[in-house]
Amino acid sequence: MASAFETKATIATFGGKLLKLSHKSNATQTPMDVNLYLPPASNDRKVPVLIFLSGLTCTPNNCSEKGFFHAAASKAGLAVLYPDTSPRGADLPGEKDSWDFGEGAGFYINATAEPWKKHYNMETYVTKELPEAVFGAYGDKLDSSRVSITGHSMGGHGALTLFLKNPGMYRSVSALAPICNPSQCPWGEKAFGNYFGSDKSVWAGSDATELVRSQLKSGEKLPCLIDVGTGDNFYNQKQLLPENLEKAVKETGVEGVTVRYQPDYDHSYFFISSFAEDHVQHAAKHLL
Amino acid sequence: MASAFETKATIATFGGKLLKLSHKSNATQTPMDVNLYLPPASNDRKVPVLIFLSGLTCTPNNCSEKGFFHAAASKAGLAVLYPDTSPRGADLPGEKDSWDFGEGAGFYINATAEPWKKHYNMETYVTKELPEAVFGAYGDKLDSSRVSITGHSMGGHGALTLFLKNPGMYRSVSALAPICNPSQCPWGEKAFGNYFGSDKSVWAGSDATELVRSQLKSGEKLPCLIDVGTGDNFYNQKQLLPENLEKAVKETGVEGVTVRYQPDYDHSYFFISSFAEDHVQHAAKHLL
Repeated sequence: MASAFETKATIATFGGKLLKLSHKSNATQTPMDVNLYLPPASNDRKVPVLIFLSGLTCTPNNCSEKGFFHAAASKAGLAVLYPDTSPRGADLPGEKDSWDFGEGAGFYINATAEPWKKHYNMETYVTKELPEAVFGAYGDKLDSSRVSITGHSMGGHGALTLFLKNPGMYRSVSALAPICNPSQCPWGEKAFGNYFGSDKSVWAGSDATELVRSQLKSGEKLPCLIDVGTGDNFYNQKQLLPENLEKAVKETGVEGVTVRYQPDYDHSYFFISSFAEDHVQHAAKHLL
Repeated sequence: MASAFETKATIATFGGKLLKLSHKSNATQTPMDVNLYLPPASNDRKVPVLIFLSGLTCTPNNCSEKGFFHAAASKAGLAVLYPDTSPRGADLPGEKDSWDFGEGAGFYINATAEPWKKHYNMETYVTKELPEAVFGAYGDKLDSSRVSITGHSMGGHGALTLFLKNPGMYRSVSALAPICNPSQCPWGEKAFGNYFGSDKSVWAGSDATELVRSQLKSGEKLPCLIDVGTGDNFYNQKQLLPENLEKAVKETGVEGVTVRYQPDYDHSYFFISSFAEDHVQHAAKHLL
């Protein structure tokens, strides 16, 4: 069980409060920072929660400051939860050598290979330990039965895979510039090769494109919105591969998936913030 | 005359484009960065411009990334122009020793004291050289006859004083957590003492509270919106002194000024972004 939250800051913004929290995690065996945006209180009704999983190198602060989710979350009456992107301070060899692996790059999986498996358990952290801790501490304000998930880049991969691996856990999923097929792109090959080892059948269990094929059947509904910018260097370098996910969706006969290609948009928070409102509204449709 | 703009980046955001520009300034004798947000093109009508003056330590990027003016500017059809906060690279002694004086702290005045007066001419830069350059380069998109001004903290001081010193130059003014009476607060005493020397009659010419008393008459209209957070440390440390401005407005009999105290809000971009839409709409009312 995680330790109680320490509240490091309480910040008024968009009519609500952004809480900067920290607690000790059992899953990662490290302290973990997490931000929680609480929309303006509306009588005594509990609000649903949208989890935002951030991309490579980010902390909970990047999207809290630059993602612009709070304007729309306040209007819709949603809380937004921002987990960190990896354990920090585990002090493993090579952990800080790359910007796209190790610290800031936990990929929302449970590592099975040494030396990562002791700490790099972001899947358990995000799907079990963190929600238990948050709904335990803020159960008077948040409705644990209404949760959706979204994310950016590596966090888009996280949102898609955690949704697909955990039927019933989330009401909807969306993603901005997600890594859709990590088994087939350099970022994913590096991360999965190190966290899981070389067995690609294991990789498939944490690959959104493979999961669509293995977990869903023709006619099944995947309530999913994806935005990708056509000016995104990582999209153009084939790190994201949304076309592979679209192909899997089409060939499997899955319904409910919308993939939009936004002309000229890049991979940055200028892109995320531009479409934050759409992603909040997508979640709100399923949560409210 | 300033040199032509070099375009360092063109970024799609909120349906428009953020241009990161740089040019050489005669007023400051240095290169100057400036950002320009162009809202989505609407047929061939030229759009008005809202100038945002940033606070201590900021570059044009801070508010471009975290201020969230672009959402509202796109809806209203306004461009937003973000000048830098001082010359950079003038290489004067002591210029980088303080976060609240010298580089990043130009105070939007023309310095009269050595060694600052050669470079620290942000008033001329913002009121003359930059608009000439911008309307020269983007005259097909921007309407030079419709300009308003706003800003944060030191930039709020800049917006208020440049509006009051230049009747007719701007259609409206607003400010977030502005330094309202620099002659009476530590930030202003340090800056004006160094940039102007010790003659306080000179200081009064760049002090919004003093300018209200010296420039306006009873019944005159000052189309001004000010927001201040009650949780703002700098407000509580009496760096901002909005009450002094309010008193001057009241005693002079000036009309049209709204000062709002926003409960719990701090001095950060979490505050700025929360009220950006109101400040865009305040400008839009006078520009459209």
